Amino acid sequence: MKDFIFNVSTKILFGRDQMKNLASEIKKYGSRVLLAYGGGSIKKSGLYDEVVKIFEDNDIFYKELAGIEPNPRVDSAREGVKIARENNLDFILAVGGGSVIDLSKLVAGAVYLDCDPWDIVIKKAKIEKALPIGTILTLAATGSEMDAGGVITNLETNQKLGFGSAYTLPKFSILNPETTYSVNAKHTAAGIADIMSHTMENYFTLGDGAYMQNRLAEGILKTCIHYGPIAMEEPENYEARANIMWASSWAINGLLSTGKSTAWSVHAMEHELSAYYDITHGIGLAILTPRFLNHILSDKTVDMIRDFGINVFNITPSDNKMNDAKKAIAYLHAFFEQDMCIPMTLGEVGIDDEKLEIMAEAAARHAGGTIRGVVELTRDDVLEIYKASL
Amino acid sequence: MKDFIFNVSTKILFGRDQMKNLASEIKKYGSRVLLAYGGGSIKKSGLYDEVVKIFEDNDIFYKELAGIEPNPRVDSAREGVKIARENNLDFILAVGGGSVIDLSKLVAGAVYLDCDPWDIVIKKAKIEKALPIGTILTLAATGSEMDAGGVITNLETNQKLGFGSAYTLPKFSILNPETTYSVNAKHTAAGIADIMSHTMENYFTLGDGAYMQNRLAEGILKTCIHYGPIAMEEPENYEARANIMWASSWAINGLLSTGKSTAWSVHAMEHELSAYYDITHGIGLAILTPRFLNHILSDKTVDMIRDFGINVFNITPSDNKMNDAKKAIAYLHAFFEQDMCIPMTLGEVGIDDEKLEIMAEAAARHAGGTIRGVVELTRDDVLEIYKASL
Repeated sequence: MKDFIFNVSTKILFGRDQMKNLASEIKKYGSRVLLAYGGGSIKKSGLYDEVVKIFEDNDIFYKELAGIEPNPRVDSAREGVKIARENNLDFILAVGGGSVIDLSKLVAGAVYLDCDPWDIVIKKAKIEKALPIGTILTLAATGSEMDAGGVITNLETNQKLGFGSAYTLPKFSILNPETTYSVNAKHTAAGIADIMSHTMENYFTLGDGAYMQNRLAEGILKTCIHYGPIAMEEPENYEARANIMWASSWAINGLLSTGKSTAWSVHAMEHELSAYYDITHGIGLAILTPRFLNHILSDKTVDMIRDFGINVFNITPSDNKMNDAKKAIAYLHAFFEQDMCIPMTLGEVGIDDEKLEIMAEAAARHAGGTIRGVVELTRDDVLEIYKASL
Repeated sequence: MKDFIFNVSTKILFGRDQMKNLASEIKKYGSRVLLAYGGGSIKKSGLYDEVVKIFEDNDIFYKELAGIEPNPRVDSAREGVKIARENNLDFILAVGGGSVIDLSKLVAGAVYLDCDPWDIVIKKAKIEKALPIGTILTLAATGSEMDAGGVITNLETNQKLGFGSAYTLPKFSILNPETTYSVNAKHTAAGIADIMSHTMENYFTLGDGAYMQNRLAEGILKTCIHYGPIAMEEPENYEARANIMWASSWAINGLLSTGKSTAWSVHAMEHELSAYYDITHGIGLAILTPRFLNHILSDKTVDMIRDFGINVFNITPSDNKMNDAKKAIAYLHAFFEQDMCIPMTLGEVGIDDEKLEIMAEAAARHAGGTIRGVVELTRDDVLEIYKASL
């Protein structure tokens, strides 16, 4: 196990009855709030009205940053910084899914820097201070509610890149599984695929001796596999929504990667798909992951992938390791396709072979030449994986 | 899943090379340190000299609280409070295992209260403020390095009781698996039994829908079962020591109990054994746990215990659920006895039937009349479990 530092101080308030704590949690940090949210689903659900009433009842001043997009764009961050500065705001409350929270993190850091927010993403500027952030999560997927990073899209440059800073870790997050009841089947499935992908990006490494972390990862994968179909079938099943929501936080908050070298190979490949085609991130991950595993399957990785099948999908081990590993990959593919109803080809989400080479090139370039992971991926490897996904 | 708050902000610095961060971590909080430790094993290992040199090199003033006992006693806390007050200390560094850390937590809170430290333990006084604490862990067992509680013994009253306060959660903990190389086989085994017991106390509940938490608990149990025998056989196996050490923190820091009602039934029964006979806590837990499970085995609990056998010990499920559950209990007993070389009867640790009734009485009384858990235990139940353990 490699040396590591783990420091995740986000206070999680989980359950049906936590909004009563919202005002007191905010007031630990500020009283002039940037209320950040997305396309208005929180207005439909009544959550917006609930938050605004709490603000009014508790003399909390607020300004709104509305309309934050899925695959959130740097333009929204520019707008958020402007609003925060003009109104001398001292706290950001992000109400929504990962996009809203990610975007809020960028605003929180950029407020204190004399540069364009995009400079933070492309590492021309570094966050040294940030507005404190709280979140009310409405979609179980990205884990942004309990981690320090975010992913931002720049449509002008066709870039979708991650950034992170310890300063942008949320101070608190309110997780009420009931807020996810209204998430439709497609986005429920995409969220679960996202959670599973985070887990698998942390899980598929070799030779690091992080046994406990891998057993925990398997526990999170089993949770998604168990409750995924239930949440699809019964959107208002509290137990299913609660387990999936809590899994989303732990898949990516750093515990599963402690002591390991992880490379997030599939994310590196998927980010190009969303940057060029604006597809749903989780769907892209689900499509690519089985093809990625198939591509890297070799004598070196066969035990790792076979163990995944045995421990997560309860495959009965046979004498033919390679067959067992292939079965594991097939089960994962079938879970996404059959249980989660995810379209499992790029064609079905509107991506043909036109830009595959450009995207493969970009994926490798953004990773610094090659994607270093359990198996190193060159531009050609990425292209093959894209082609296998068509 | 029940509503819960999870808020574990301890910064973990894990690995071989973290002592370089000790001075800077302390200086975030103070510069006049109470250096708390136990019986001198840290002098033998060189850790004491290393810490003192870091203090000297970094102008950190310190006073020592030495000789803290296993099953730490309230007298040591009284002494610690006196030293801290007389020297105007502003930070506590606990170097040792759970006893040293637990005792340090009590000192940290008692410094600010105008009462005897024991009043905190018996809930006559409440911690409202505490000295900040850092730890350097030398024994993987209690998880005190990443939680807010402690257990203190009062030999005058034959009481061993827990206390806890959010204020006494360590600010940081340095976990170097190498510091546990010198832990002998007996205490390695006792530590692992302690970790497993914490996990099982969180795990064995019914009907709370905390599926993910249970899969994570199984991951931690599997880690102990996998590496326990390796650590016994090869005390300097880094991978084994590292996995066990990291497991110790997660067994009890609150994650596994999120969303659940847990009762810690076996701890309630064991605390009386250590209070009356000063036996090693982990050994007592190992002796009692299989007898506890056997005692509560019924139609109501059979699935729960059988699943434990299937998911943790890879028992092949049969049509006879009750037999499967009994097999699970037998495997747990055999693991402690055969793999961990733990004496599995009370007789072997010097406890005969003389005080069983007194202890059963006390266990029930300290729990408020009966021990509420997955199955409620009266004084008579406790007595039966003690007798089955003779």
